[in-house]
Amino acid sequence: MKIRYSGPVELHEPVHRCQYRVIYADTDTGGVVYYGNYLRLFEIGRTEFMRSRLRVSYRELEAQGIILPVVESYVRYKAPARYDDLLEICSSLGGYSRISIRFHHEIKCCRSGRLLVRGFTIHAATDRSGSLTRLPGGLYSGIGRLAESG
Amino acid sequence: MKIRYSGPVELHEPVHRCQYRVIYADTDTGGVVYYGNYLRLFEIGRTEFMRSRLRVSYRELEAQGIILPVVESYVRYKAPARYDDLLEICSSLGGYSRISIRFHHEIKCCRSGRLLVRGFTIHAATDRSGSLTRLPGGLYSGIGRLAESG
Amino acid sequence: MKIRYSGPVELHEPVHRCQYRVIYADTDTGGVVYYGNYLRLFEIGRTEFMRSRLRVSYRELEAQGIILPVVESYVRYKAPARYDDLLEICSSLGGYSRISIRFHHEIKCCRSGRLLVRGFTIHAATDRSGSLTRLPGGLYSGIGRLAESG
Amino acid sequence: MKIRYSGPVELHEPVHRCQYRVIYADTDTGGVVYYGNYLRLFEIGRTEFMRSRLRVSYRELEAQGIILPVVESYVRYKAPARYDDLLEICSSLGGYSRISIRFHHEIKCCRSGRLLVRGFTIHAATDRSGSLTRLPGGLYSGIGRLAESG
Repeated sequence: MKIRYSGPVELHEPVHRCQYRVIYADTDTGGVVYYGNYLRLFEIGRTEFMRSRLRVSYRELEAQGIILPVVESYVRYKAPARYDDLLEICSSLGGYSRISIRFHHEIKCCRSGRLLVRGFTIHAATDRSGSLTRLPGGLYSGIGRLAESG
Repeated sequence: MKIRYSGPVELHEPVHRCQYRVIYADTDTGGVVYYGNYLRLFEIGRTEFMRSRLRVSYRELEAQGIILPVVESYVRYKAPARYDDLLEICSSLGGYSRISIRFHHEIKCCRSGRLLVRGFTIHAATDRSGSLTRLPGGLYSGIGRLAESG
Repeated sequence: MKIRYSGPVELHEPVHRCQYRVIYADTDTGGVVYYGNYLRLFEIGRTEFMRSRLRVSYRELEAQGIILPVVESYVRYKAPARYDDLLEICSSLGGYSRISIRFHHEIKCCRSGRLLVRGFTIHAATDRSGSLTRLPGGLYSGIGRLAESG
Repeated sequence: MKIRYSGPVELHEPVHRCQYRVIYADTDTGGVVYYGNYLRLFEIGRTEFMRSRLRVSYRELEAQGIILPVVESYVRYKAPARYDDLLEICSSLGGYSRISIRFHHEIKCCRSGRLLVRGFTIHAATDRSGSLTRLPGGLYSGIGRLAESG
């Protein structure tokens, strides 16, 4: 399984964009969003990417017995998000194989357009017992079509 | 099921005490612990109360098919906890019935001894399907002995 | 300062409604939203209530030196929210004085319409040093007009 | 500033070890610790590493006007931690310069000894305005002595 870190973290078309308003709960005493909470935003981004671009609800995927646990995450923090900022979460496919998917993420400030954070998450496909398994055929071919269309 | 709010939130002996160090993740941009995060500390308190005073691991209780979901929580915030503060979580039994347990909690600053937060959580006993059920006999009698010993 | 718990937790018109999609981060190993995380949803609800109904951004209020720390919170958990559920957060004014505001909150499942959670938060008005202070005149009269209009 | 990802994520002596008990709040509906919450554990690890090995409290550092915001984080998830697991957080210095520190982290299951997670965080030194600044002389030389002693 060769799904480890390599290459730049860039967005590829199609990119899914959604918005998120920072609340107090997301921030820390440094006056900025806590560094671990961007992984929440990455989750929102990839879930909505799957729903809108791949027509797959992760909840339904789970109901079929397919889990996509995160095996690696990487975040580059360039500038902080602050309380009440409206953020744009941009997500795209970063790579894939029969047994894994990689998502790329960027988070921007809607007001200034500034890039705040970028990073990736890599997911293995497993069954409920945690054993590696192949992505369902329909999802795999959907990812392939999307990757070619970009 | 009459397990709703009533009466003062006071600790009764025996009280279980454990310590917690505030991290950045717990705080918010106001420079204090986020108000929702005290419910994490209440969870730590009641879990360790059960482990040390009732000789029950909540994990084992679950393995037996007994769940104790929270049905009510109340928190009174008197003074803020701040980053790197060492806190004392004080937990005691606040009441019980065949199908419910109530815990009382206080959180103090170890350095100053000041009371920061107090509150309660009320838990119903259910089976895995979510139906109300009786507390296991051993746990119920253990709670009874503890309540009388205080 | 008489701002302690009393009376039923009911919504009063005008009610502000907004939606929230449950993510993995919100849930726990019990398969439901963690009990402390509903206080995040209450925060979203009251912030958007203030923005849309009182024309006040809490960020701007803070910039003027007015803080509204939570002094009490209460939650009644009636049924669990689960992963990927679309929730409706309903928020209304529950009471007010020269130095405090009380918000009432209900959280419903959008699909089933079922009431999942209700509760309140009470906020004191303080200056940056934490001393009790009066609500700004404009905000106070705005709250009064809203309370009468309901 | 060359402080980007490179090389293996391995622990170097001296290693600081501390324990953490997983609570419900840390877990998700998948029955395991949520992937973003390991960054909380990394924070605990590096804070206690600094306190015990470098004799520096991060709170005091901040009081002197020195902030160490995270500029990069990486996590490799090898096996999941579960509710009530007692974890060992192992932290060591992974690199340093006049203006940055890199920490390496491993998280193990105390019961089985199994390695669950490894990763790093890279921190820039800034002043309160966010401008890059040099680490205080005492801290920098302390880090140097530690790095040579390993």
